[in-house]
Amino acid sequence: MTISAGVDVGGTKILGVAIDDEDPGTIVAEQRLATPEAEDAVLDAMAEIIGKLGADVSAVGVGIAGLVDRTGVLHASPNLPHMLGVDMAAEIQRRIGGLPVRVDNDATCAAWGEHVAGAGRGSNDVLMVTLGTGIGSGLISDGELVRGAHGFGGEAGHMVVDAHGPPCPCGRWGCWERFASGSGLARLGRDAAAAGRLERAKELAGGESWLVKGEHVTEAARAGDPQALALLETFAGWVALGIGNLVTVLDASLVVVGGGIIELGDLLLDPVRAALPGHLMCPNERSELRIVPAELGPRAGAIGAAMLGLRGPSR
Amino acid sequence: MTISAGVDVGGTKILGVAIDDEDPGTIVAEQRLATPEAEDAVLDAMAEIIGKLGADVSAVGVGIAGLVDRTGVLHASPNLPHMLGVDMAAEIQRRIGGLPVRVDNDATCAAWGEHVAGAGRGSNDVLMVTLGTGIGSGLISDGELVRGAHGFGGEAGHMVVDAHGPPCPCGRWGCWERFASGSGLARLGRDAAAAGRLERAKELAGGESWLVKGEHVTEAARAGDPQALALLETFAGWVALGIGNLVTVLDASLVVVGGGIIELGDLLLDPVRAALPGHLMCPNERSELRIVPAELGPRAGAIGAAMLGLRGPSR
Repeated sequence: MTISAGVDVGGTKILGVAIDDEDPGTIVAEQRLATPEAEDAVLDAMAEIIGKLGADVSAVGVGIAGLVDRTGVLHASPNLPHMLGVDMAAEIQRRIGGLPVRVDNDATCAAWGEHVAGAGRGSNDVLMVTLGTGIGSGLISDGELVRGAHGFGGEAGHMVVDAHGPPCPCGRWGCWERFASGSGLARLGRDAAAAGRLERAKELAGGESWLVKGEHVTEAARAGDPQALALLETFAGWVALGIGNLVTVLDASLVVVGGGIIELGDLLLDPVRAALPGHLMCPNERSELRIVPAELGPRAGAIGAAMLGLRGPSR
Repeated sequence: MTISAGVDVGGTKILGVAIDDEDPGTIVAEQRLATPEAEDAVLDAMAEIIGKLGADVSAVGVGIAGLVDRTGVLHASPNLPHMLGVDMAAEIQRRIGGLPVRVDNDATCAAWGEHVAGAGRGSNDVLMVTLGTGIGSGLISDGELVRGAHGFGGEAGHMVVDAHGPPCPCGRWGCWERFASGSGLARLGRDAAAAGRLERAKELAGGESWLVKGEHVTEAARAGDPQALALLETFAGWVALGIGNLVTVLDASLVVVGGGIIELGDLLLDPVRAALPGHLMCPNERSELRIVPAELGPRAGAIGAAMLGLRGPSR
């Protein structure tokens, strides 16, 4: 039995879990702290969480949004822009008495977590997409993570799917996450509300089209509002288009969908499943392809980080 | 020393090479035949080529355009539509006295060939794209092929890059190969000629816009015609967009570009290189990313097939 600590660093909170490698589905201990502003304070908070997870921790994995290279250095991050260039692995290791530390992208960690202990068990070719403010993704091919040359693999949210589409903060146009993320749903919602095609959700937003958020659309859809359901179908089409692209390129046989919006369950996944064949090369040859909801919820990243930590530190 | 036969089955010809595993860059023997029409005749021709490659052949690999599963069965093919569902591996094996046979997609074979013996040597994360009538692609992650659940991995030509783009024979709209293949170049050329923006190439096509082909555009571009060079730059932008998507998703550090159009050399690759950063997430963090021409030419598929054959038969 080896206990590994997994830490998921988000924009607002840091979540840590301790996992026994012989039973990765069970959380032995859990800790959380608000994400501090200052660089040193973030690193100190991570060390504090790891310390509180118990003295028997012998490996550490960390997941962070953004581009983390294979040596554990952060190269781009939406949540920790003041920490670019920081050798996260070395800085954390120094604070926790020299335990080996591995640092990865948080969506990569979540994909690995679902693969070893969640909805991705039993499949060797898994695509996980997390539909949040943006889209996180992680790819598993033949049972192994597609990490890429630097460790930046899996940034599928920035795959261009509509070359003439709306601008993306990344500097390009028509990235998948402009359509198929929580903020993509909000954008589709605002446009539909302004065009008079989303009355109920607009009411929920105080009567102002520009205040429509994803939650207003999903609340109206849950209540059975036909306009909101129609918009959700449009949104599901964009989700399916990107999944179709990735399955066409990677030939995954299992797609795990996570993120807050997955609380909608089959209200979202059924239209995605219905749209997928139309967005897939040779769908009839992939009849066993499944789209399933994530099982580990907001702990997927921390669990995956812990399991990746067991595989050895960043190099 | 082990001699492996590699066979690349195209729409018009079947090419076979014999390779010594200790020196995969050198072709020991070579054979070719026209591709027959009938199913049995195609299989017989493959067996004939393998036989002529020499008695010391002890492994066989075959590359075929289309979807080939991991057991060696053909599921979709532009060139051999009458052979769908055929267990190619078993049928060939039966004709060559029981030697083990492995069958893969031809672009997968070409990518592996360039990886072991061509432009992809020395890099573990390679993307190869072959710009022909369509786009073939093969992906190598951490030194291994991304084969996918069925073995269908790498169909990047059918990644949708313009959701509102032109229809594709695959049934969807705006697939990458509608823009960035040889037929994509012809389509861009016809549109430009009809709009009066491609005079020289139109002359080469006998004065008819609808007869403009990729060769007319490349011939005019080679002669320095500014309109043809401008169109080539547009085309290069589409090539870069798809490569940018794939590098963003897979984090390859080396892109090998093959296909007939690569005879243009830097006349094509320089504008692709210039456009790539604009189509890439965080280009500054990938400064060592290179785009290079394929080295093995039309033999890449056969060489790669031979080397894959050495890794054991289809299962």
